[in-house]
Amino acid sequence: MATVTPLGKARGAGKPAGLERLLALVGHDLAAVNQEIIRRMHSRVPLIPELASHLISAGGKRVRPLLTLGAAKLCGYDGNQHTLLAACVEFIHTATLLHDDVVDESELRRGNATANLLWGNEASVLVGDFLFSRAFQLMVETGSLEILRILAGASATIAEGEVMQLATANDMTTTEDAYLDVISAKTAALFAAACRVGGVIAGCDPAAADGLDSFGRNLGIAFQLVDDALDYAADQQALGKSVGDDFKEGKITLPVILAFRRGGEDERAFWRRTQEKLEQQPGDLEQAQVLMRRHAAIADTLERARYYGDLAHRELARFPDGEAKAALAAVVDFSIERAY
Amino acid sequence: MATVTPLGKARGAGKPAGLERLLALVGHDLAAVNQEIIRRMHSRVPLIPELASHLISAGGKRVRPLLTLGAAKLCGYDGNQHTLLAACVEFIHTATLLHDDVVDESELRRGNATANLLWGNEASVLVGDFLFSRAFQLMVETGSLEILRILAGASATIAEGEVMQLATANDMTTTEDAYLDVISAKTAALFAAACRVGGVIAGCDPAAADGLDSFGRNLGIAFQLVDDALDYAADQQALGKSVGDDFKEGKITLPVILAFRRGGEDERAFWRRTQEKLEQQPGDLEQAQVLMRRHAAIADTLERARYYGDLAHRELARFPDGEAKAALAAVVDFSIERAY
Repeated sequence: MATVTPLGKARGAGKPAGLERLLALVGHDLAAVNQEIIRRMHSRVPLIPELASHLISAGGKRVRPLLTLGAAKLCGYDGNQHTLLAACVEFIHTATLLHDDVVDESELRRGNATANLLWGNEASVLVGDFLFSRAFQLMVETGSLEILRILAGASATIAEGEVMQLATANDMTTTEDAYLDVISAKTAALFAAACRVGGVIAGCDPAAADGLDSFGRNLGIAFQLVDDALDYAADQQALGKSVGDDFKEGKITLPVILAFRRGGEDERAFWRRTQEKLEQQPGDLEQAQVLMRRHAAIADTLERARYYGDLAHRELARFPDGEAKAALAAVVDFSIERAY
Repeated sequence: MATVTPLGKARGAGKPAGLERLLALVGHDLAAVNQEIIRRMHSRVPLIPELASHLISAGGKRVRPLLTLGAAKLCGYDGNQHTLLAACVEFIHTATLLHDDVVDESELRRGNATANLLWGNEASVLVGDFLFSRAFQLMVETGSLEILRILAGASATIAEGEVMQLATANDMTTTEDAYLDVISAKTAALFAAACRVGGVIAGCDPAAADGLDSFGRNLGIAFQLVDDALDYAADQQALGKSVGDDFKEGKITLPVILAFRRGGEDERAFWRRTQEKLEQQPGDLEQAQVLMRRHAAIADTLERARYYGDLAHRELARFPDGEAKAALAAVVDFSIERAY
């Protein structure tokens, strides 16, 4: 991996990197979003805010609501509904995380024990349902059917992506196309919608809305590719999630697909044993990492992430230069730099 | 139970009983709803319609969508959006059933093996999410923010009710008030919304919308009270769900609350052992039924169901006489007659 040029760093040279630039621009709005989130996850049933705040306060990066705020800023919005909308986006994301952790039987999320481990699967499913419903209640407050249409569509697509992912799990015949289909749906659809609604609330024209959608979609694919690479490559402490989760569950991500395709018959037998039959022994994760290095599977996954990152950058070209555009570009770089 | 006068039968004497009357009135619309449901649960991911249709086609009674159709008819609606709306309501209901069965670890629903047993908890959670999102997509098509507001609110309330139910499970200190709070939220809120949106789509005035809401709410409480009584009293074959499920899980319903409150110390020890500690032996369910008979717990639960049924009947009084009103009244009777 030392031979790979970190594109993000090259682009960002001499400028405030990563999310900081967008935070500097919309930090005040993000504080309002966080207040909105806390206020709106309230329920007369104490377990709901208790469980929800465990996850929400654990300090995710708030990438998706930041994108909504950034897109609204890019389109010159000066109203106050974008913070409500950004809270919606974060609620939808949180609901899917809660349901994901039930599906994956995860034990660690954002460096903390998962809600399903602490409160049980039942509560995680139901509090996810609550947050999802609450998100739609907030959308109604914006008074925009267009926004409801966008986010309801994204929610349906996310669920489709998650079901597709179930179907490809433990199946070593999963193709790169099938994998891209899964991450486009389960991850990129919400990135796309988060950006689009920021433009729509600002009253942008349809072409700009489509451009923001495409920006978010390509960024989301890049983001997920890096995530999937990190699951095999990262330092557990720094990442704040269990490294090797995907391996343990037999989730067939691009690094696995590439290593399997490029490996000999004995290597394929290893992948089939550990990923299809889930017969895993101590040392298997390390062996998987050895095989990935041998076939440049992580490096090539990151290479693809940079490709989608470039597509995202190109979509920004249509928008007027300025601080908002530069800040959104820096989010793309951040999403890829995480890997280095 | 032989001493209880079945109020429903008395009211319905000489008339087509139960759901048939409403079916006769809106049967054509219901066929359109069923087509809409099949069409709209389609997804490019085959597992989604496969799993959803397992539950939807198993032939639930479609009480909730029937209520939407009946309420629209009562308010003189002659458009075609009520079938779309009825499909929404059934999708929300189906999504909650899928999540319920995961939460309850049920194995039987509508006389069939549950989806979670056949496809796993993961798929049930995610297909539930899909149907829920799809419901909101359909609502957007109606173009009515008011309808979105009503159904998003009901969905949030349902989730709150389900979480409250988790908190009261295995807790013999649960009061009758707490129980009513749970069923008002988890069941009656959707009955209320199903009725209200039928009126709203027809352009009824706010007082009529409130009346329909109250009709649905009281009907829903009666419906759930009867359901909870049946879980201890019914013939498994006829009910199409496992009798004794609530007992097995330690779900604290009104029959249990009444029997516990009225029992001596040794009986209370029995309830605490079986419902709080879930230490159950063969014969315990039969013993629970003996204790309920001894204290008229089932009969008194049904008595309360009749009380709420009467409240529902009274709400109908404000509406003009006619076939729609009579058919909705018959649904109340049906909901209670099920117990006899």
